[in-house]
Amino acid sequence: MSRLDVTEKIITTKVAKGLKWSDIAAKVGLSKEWVTAGCLGQMTFNAEQAGVLAEIFSLTDDEKKWLMVVPYKGSLPTSVPTDPLIYRFYELISVYGTTFKELIHEEFGDGIMSAIDFKMDLQREANPMGDRVAITMSGKFLPYKTY
Amino acid sequence: MSRLDVTEKIITTKVAKGLKWSDIAAKVGLSKEWVTAGCLGQMTFNAEQAGVLAEIFSLTDDEKKWLMVVPYKGSLPTSVPTDPLIYRFYELISVYGTTFKELIHEEFGDGIMSAIDFKMDLQREANPMGDRVAITMSGKFLPYKTY
Amino acid sequence: MSRLDVTEKIITTKVAKGLKWSDIAAKVGLSKEWVTAGCLGQMTFNAEQAGVLAEIFSLTDDEKKWLMVVPYKGSLPTSVPTDPLIYRFYELISVYGTTFKELIHEEFGDGIMSAIDFKMDLQREANPMGDRVAITMSGKFLPYKTY
Amino acid sequence: MSRLDVTEKIITTKVAKGLKWSDIAAKVGLSKEWVTAGCLGQMTFNAEQAGVLAEIFSLTDDEKKWLMVVPYKGSLPTSVPTDPLIYRFYELISVYGTTFKELIHEEFGDGIMSAIDFKMDLQREANPMGDRVAITMSGKFLPYKTY
Amino acid sequence: MSRLDVTEKIITTKVAKGLKWSDIAAKVGLSKEWVTAGCLGQMTFNAEQAGVLAEIFSLTDDEKKWLMVVPYKGSLPTSVPTDPLIYRFYELISVYGTTFKELIHEEFGDGIMSAIDFKMDLQREANPMGDRVAITMSGKFLPYKTY
Amino acid sequence: MSRLDVTEKIITTKVAKGLKWSDIAAKVGLSKEWVTAGCLGQMTFNAEQAGVLAEIFSLTDDEKKWLMVVPYKGSLPTSVPTDPLIYRFYELISVYGTTFKELIHEEFGDGIMSAIDFKMDLQREANPMGDRVAITMSGKFLPYKTY
Amino acid sequence: MSRLDVTEKIITTKVAKGLKWSDIAAKVGLSKEWVTAGCLGQMTFNAEQAGVLAEIFSLTDDEKKWLMVVPYKGSLPTSVPTDPLIYRFYELISVYGTTFKELIHEEFGDGIMSAIDFKMDLQREANPMGDRVAITMSGKFLPYKTY
Amino acid sequence: MSRLDVTEKIITTKVAKGLKWSDIAAKVGLSKEWVTAGCLGQMTFNAEQAGVLAEIFSLTDDEKKWLMVVPYKGSLPTSVPTDPLIYRFYELISVYGTTFKELIHEEFGDGIMSAIDFKMDLQREANPMGDRVAITMSGKFLPYKTY
Amino acid sequence: MSRLDVTEKIITTKVAKGLKWSDIAAKVGLSKEWVTAGCLGQMTFNAEQAGVLAEIFSLTDDEKKWLMVVPYKGSLPTSVPTDPLIYRFYELISVYGTTFKELIHEEFGDGIMSAIDFKMDLQREANPMGDRVAITMSGKFLPYKTY
Amino acid sequence: MSRLDVTEKIITTKVAKGLKWSDIAAKVGLSKEWVTAGCLGQMTFNAEQAGVLAEIFSLTDDEKKWLMVVPYKGSLPTSVPTDPLIYRFYELISVYGTTFKELIHEEFGDGIMSAIDFKMDLQREANPMGDRVAITMSGKFLPYKTY
Repeated sequence: MSRLDVTEKIITTKVAKGLKWSDIAAKVGLSKEWVTAGCLGQMTFNAEQAGVLAEIFSLTDDEKKWLMVVPYKGSLPTSVPTDPLIYRFYELISVYGTTFKELIHEEFGDGIMSAIDFKMDLQREANPMGDRVAITMSGKFLPYKTY
Repeated sequence: MSRLDVTEKIITTKVAKGLKWSDIAAKVGLSKEWVTAGCLGQMTFNAEQAGVLAEIFSLTDDEKKWLMVVPYKGSLPTSVPTDPLIYRFYELISVYGTTFKELIHEEFGDGIMSAIDFKMDLQREANPMGDRVAITMSGKFLPYKTY
Repeated sequence: MSRLDVTEKIITTKVAKGLKWSDIAAKVGLSKEWVTAGCLGQMTFNAEQAGVLAEIFSLTDDEKKWLMVVPYKGSLPTSVPTDPLIYRFYELISVYGTTFKELIHEEFGDGIMSAIDFKMDLQREANPMGDRVAITMSGKFLPYKTY
Repeated sequence: MSRLDVTEKIITTKVAKGLKWSDIAAKVGLSKEWVTAGCLGQMTFNAEQAGVLAEIFSLTDDEKKWLMVVPYKGSLPTSVPTDPLIYRFYELISVYGTTFKELIHEEFGDGIMSAIDFKMDLQREANPMGDRVAITMSGKFLPYKTY
Repeated sequence: MSRLDVTEKIITTKVAKGLKWSDIAAKVGLSKEWVTAGCLGQMTFNAEQAGVLAEIFSLTDDEKKWLMVVPYKGSLPTSVPTDPLIYRFYELISVYGTTFKELIHEEFGDGIMSAIDFKMDLQREANPMGDRVAITMSGKFLPYKTY
Repeated sequence: MSRLDVTEKIITTKVAKGLKWSDIAAKVGLSKEWVTAGCLGQMTFNAEQAGVLAEIFSLTDDEKKWLMVVPYKGSLPTSVPTDPLIYRFYELISVYGTTFKELIHEEFGDGIMSAIDFKMDLQREANPMGDRVAITMSGKFLPYKTY
Repeated sequence: MSRLDVTEKIITTKVAKGLKWSDIAAKVGLSKEWVTAGCLGQMTFNAEQAGVLAEIFSLTDDEKKWLMVVPYKGSLPTSVPTDPLIYRFYELISVYGTTFKELIHEEFGDGIMSAIDFKMDLQREANPMGDRVAITMSGKFLPYKTY
Repeated sequence: MSRLDVTEKIITTKVAKGLKWSDIAAKVGLSKEWVTAGCLGQMTFNAEQAGVLAEIFSLTDDEKKWLMVVPYKGSLPTSVPTDPLIYRFYELISVYGTTFKELIHEEFGDGIMSAIDFKMDLQREANPMGDRVAITMSGKFLPYKTY
Repeated sequence: MSRLDVTEKIITTKVAKGLKWSDIAAKVGLSKEWVTAGCLGQMTFNAEQAGVLAEIFSLTDDEKKWLMVVPYKGSLPTSVPTDPLIYRFYELISVYGTTFKELIHEEFGDGIMSAIDFKMDLQREANPMGDRVAITMSGKFLPYKTY
Repeated sequence: MSRLDVTEKIITTKVAKGLKWSDIAAKVGLSKEWVTAGCLGQMTFNAEQAGVLAEIFSLTDDEKKWLMVVPYKGSLPTSVPTDPLIYRFYELISVYGTTFKELIHEEFGDGIMSAIDFKMDLQREANPMGDRVAITMSGKFLPYKTY
C-alpha cells in the first residue's frame, strides 16, 4: 500500500458516493483549496483531520496513517500538462512568466514569491458576459540576501 | 529584424535608462501587467500605444511596426523554467493543478478558465510577518457544449 | 476503478459486440464526433446520456457514474503521436501551424480559435480520383483584450 | 544564404511594407493558405510564382532561386507549440486524435487521410454570439493494402 | 482485453510452438513482411485471414475480433530505438535522411514517398565476403500540388 | 571554419548554379547516393574526389581539406524528423521496425544488418497508377558471436 | 547587450588577468560563494558592489547597470549536467534525494529547506588519505501551513 | 521479487508501525543518513545489518538477501524532480553549480568532489528567526592526472 | 510470458540461491561477460547453453525456449543512466567520445569500431594505491566504402 | 573569447596544417588519448604543455591562458550521440551496462570504477579477418563505505 493507493481510494469513493469537495472541506474545517490538494495527495493531514477523512471515505486504520505521511508531491503525469483546463495555467506562465518576474522584482527586489508560505482562494465571479473564475493567490515574498 | 530584436532593444534601453514598468504603463494608459507582457513580446499594441512606446524606447519606424504585429508567444526558454521565481509558479501548477481542475469542475462543470479572456493584477500586500505578493486572476469560464 | 477502466471496458465491449460509433451516437442523440470523444474519455456525459451508454455497454452503476465525471483529458500516449493516421494531423500543424497563425491574425487580430467552444464534422467526400476525408471545424474566435 | 534567410526577409519586408497575405496570394493566383505556407518556407514555388514574389518582396536573383528549392519542412521551434493559437490545434489532436482515428477507420477501413494530397480553406463565420473561425480540410484517403 | 494482449499471446505462442513467420505467412497467403507486421499489431486482417491466424495461435473468438480492428500503430518503446538491429535503420535515416530528400526531390519534385501505398521485400543475398540483407522498398510518390 | 561551413557553401552554390546531384556524382565517378551524402557532410572524400568537388563548388584550399576530414555524422536537427519526406522513413521504422527484427533474425540468427558495409540505390519506378520511389538497400549481416 | 554579455566579459577578463574569486570577493566584502554566483549571473549586486566589480573587470557604465538587474537564473545548459564535477552534485540528489526528504520531514514535518534564505560555505578539509571538499549548507525550514 | 518490492515493504511497514529513521539507524549502529538511503534502496547492507533490518521490518529470508545485493541506484522518478523539497536541492545546483565548479577548481585544480567517498550529516539548527536545516557534506577531492 | 519475465526469474533465483556469474559462466563454458549479458536479456543462447541455464535457474521448458529467442536489446531504463557505476561509463563517452572518434579515424580512416563483432574482458588489477578495474575491449574496425 | 573558441581554432588549424594527434602528443610528452581530449576541450594543460600547444597551433597569449582553465566538460551535442562511431560506444553501455554493474559488484562489492582516476590506451590490433580496435581502460575502484 502507498499514498497513491489511498488517493485513488478517496477519488473512487468520492465518485461512488457523489460527494463534493466543499462539503468535505467544511467537515474538516479548512479551506476547500487546501483540503482538496491534501486529498489528492499533495498535503499532509494531522491526526484529527485524518480521522474525519477516514470516516468520510471509509479508510482503514493503515490507510488513515498514510494521510499523515508527507507525500512525494507533483500531481501531474507530464511536464507539459495535456488536460486543457490545467494547460491554461501552464500557458499563463509561458506567456506571463517573465512579466511576473519583472513586476515582482520591480516591487520587491531580488527574491521569490513563496509557494510554501502560500494560500489561495478560488471563487465564481458572476458576470453578465459569462461568469468568471476568480483566483486570489497570496505568497510571502522571500528576498535573496548577501552573506 | 524580428520582434525578438525589438524586445531586446526595449529591455536594453530600459536598463540603460533606468525606467520602471509601472511608469511606462502609466504613459501607455493601461495596466502594468498587460504593458509589461506586451513589451516582453507577448501582446500586440495598437498604433497609438506603439507610438508612445517608440518614443520611450527610441524605436525606429520599422521597429515600431513590429509592436503592432501579433508575436509568436511563449516567453520561456525551457518547458520546465529554471528561474526560481518563475519555477515557483510552475510548482504551484504541479502541486495544485489537479485541485484547480476539481474545484472549477465542481463549481462550473466541464470547461476551462480562459487564458485569453483573462486579466490579472499583482500587488504588494503589507504584512508584519513579511510582505506578501498578492495576485488576482480573473478568467472567463468557457464550457464544453455538446453538438 | 477509474475513468480509464471504464473507457477500456467501453472499447472492449464495442469490439466484442461489433458496434459502430455512428449507431451509438444516434442512440445518444448527438453527433458521432462528440459521442466518440466522450466514450474515449475526453468529454462528460449527463445522466440521461450516461444511462443510454450504460445500457449499450453493460456498465454497472458505479461505472456509469464515471461517465458523468470530468476526465483528465489528452488521449495520446506520446507528445509526438506514433500512429500514422494521427501523426498526419500533427504534421499539418507542423507544416501549416504558422500559416494558421498568420491568416487568423490577418482576419481577426490577436487572439485564438477556441478549442472549447468548438465543433467538428467529419464526412466522406466522394471523388473519382479516390474518396477524400472532409473535416469541417468551427471554433469561436476569442480576442485578447487590453486591460 | 539559406531558405531560412529568404523566409526571414519575406516576413520582415511584409511587416515593413504592411502587406496582406490575401493580397499577395491574389497576385500569385493561388489560395491564401497555400501561398502563406510557401512564403513561410513550407512549400515550393515554380519559376513564375517565384518571379511574382521576388518583385513583391524585392528578392535578389539568388534569393528567388531558393523559393524554387524544396524546403526542409516543419515551421515550429518546439514539438509541443508554445504559442496559444497554435497550441489550440495541438490540443485538438490531443483530445480528438483517437476520435479522428476511430471515425475515419469506421468509414474507410485501415489507412490515413493524406497530408500531402490535401487542401484547406480558412474563413470567417459570422455569428451573433461572436464570429467563428471555420476551417475546411480535405485530404485523400489512402488505404493500406496487403501485399 | 486489448490488441496488445492479443499481440503478446501471438508472440508467446509462436515461441512456445517454435513457428516461423514465413510459414505463417504462407498459410495466410500474403508476404512474410506484411503478415509479420500484422501479427505484431501494425496491420489489420480481414475475417478470413484472422480465421487462419486464430487457428494457428489458438485465439478465442474475442481475440480474433481484435485482429480485424485497426490498431494504434508504432511498434517501438522509445523514439530513438535501443535495439542494435533496429537502431541501424534509424542511423541510416540520421545519416542518409537528407540524401533521400535531395534525390527524391531532384527526381520527382516536391512531395513524399508514401509509407502507406508501400510494399517491401526482405531477402538474403549470398556473398562470399559474408551474406547480406537485401531490402527492396517501393512507395508511391505523392506530389504536393498547389490549390 | 568547420565542415558545416563547407557543407553550407556547397548547398548554397548548388542552388545558385542550378546543379544536379546526379551530374555532380557522375563527375566524381561514384553513385549519386554516396556523393550526395558526402556533400551533405556525412561521408569523407579522398584527395582526388575532393579536388573534383572543389572545382565544381569553387572551394578554397582550406575548404577542400575539410572534405577529407571524417565528419561528425547525423544530418537531422531533431531526433524525430519534422520534414514529411524524411518522417515517412522514420514512420516505416516505427511501424516495421519489429518486423525487420523478426525476419532478419529468422533468416540469419542474432546480429544486425550493417549500416557501414552498406550500399543503397534509389530509382524511379514507372507505374500507370502513379510512379513509385524504389529503394534497394544492401547491408552485410554481422552476427553476434559468443566468446 | 544583455546580462549574459556582461557575464562573459567578466569570465574572459578574469582569465586574461589571472584573477581569483576569493580575492575578488574580499574586495567586494562578501563571501566567495555569493560573489562568484553573482559574477556568474545568478545574483544581483547593489550599486556599491557593482562599482567595485566594474573597476576590477573594466566594465562600462551600461555594463555595470546590468549587474544591478535581477538575472534570469539557472547556470547550466542542460537539465542533466554533463560536466563531471557538477554531475556529482546531481547524482547526490538522485541517490540521496529521497533520504533528504525523509529526514527533513521526520525532524521538521511537511515543508522545505529554503533555497532562497540560504547560505553556503565551501572549504578544503585536510586529510592524510587525500584532502576533502567540505560544504556546509544552511537553509531556513519553511513549513506548509493549513488555511 | 526485486529490491524495489523489498523497499516498498520497508516503507509500508514503517508507516504502519510508526517507526522513525533515527531509531532504526541507532539499532543498525550507523548514521541516520546512510541507513535511510540504504532502506530506500540506494545502499547495500552486510549480513549483520540486514539481519537487524529484517527483524525490524519483518522481512522473509529471501527479502533479507535483497538488502545485501547492490541496487540499481537513482531514487527519483523524473530527471527534474517534481517534489518541492527535493526540487530545492536541484535548484541549488542549477543556480550554484557553476559556482561549485569555479571554487573547487580554484582551490584544488582539475578534478571532482567524490560522490562515493562521501559522507553527509543533516541537523536542525535552532534560530530565533525560524529554525534552519544544516547539511554538512564531505567528499574526497579526486584530481584528474595526466598519463 | 516474455523474455523479461525469464530475465527477472533468473535474477531472483540468483539472489535466492546466492550464485555467482563467474561460476554460471564456467558451467556454460563461455566468458563471464557474454554469459552475464545473455542472462540479463541481451544475448541469445543455443539449445545446449539454454539447457545448462535452465537447470541452474530451474526454468520450465517454455521459459528455456525464450533464452533461444533474440531479445529486444537495451538494458537500461533511461537514456542517461542514473546508476553511478553505469553513469561513469556514460561520462567517459561524454568526455572522451570525440577523442575516440579522432584517434580511430587517425589510425583507420572513416568507419567504426564494431559493437557486434566485439569482445570484452573485465579483470581486477591489483594496485597498492587501491585496486583497479581493467577492461579490455576489442572490436573489428568496419570501414565505410564508396560505391 | 571562450575555451570553445580556442578549441575551434585548434581543430581548424589542425585541418589546415594537416597535423596528427599522435605527433602533437609526442611533442607535449603525454599519451595521445589525454592530449587529444585536452585539445578538444576536456582536460586542463599546465603552463609548459600549453606553451607547446600554443606554438603548434599559433595561439595568442590570451588563447593559451584558456588551455590552463578547467573547461566545462562534455564533448557531445546530444545526450544520445548521432555519430555512428560514437554511438557504438553508447550502444555498448546500453547492452552491456548492467553486465558491467553485475561483474564489478561481484568482484569488488558496492562502488564504482572511477572515471577520474582513469587512463586509457587505444591501439590497432592486427587481425587477418580485418584489423581490430583495441581499447584498454583502467580505473580505480572506489568503494561506498558506511558512516
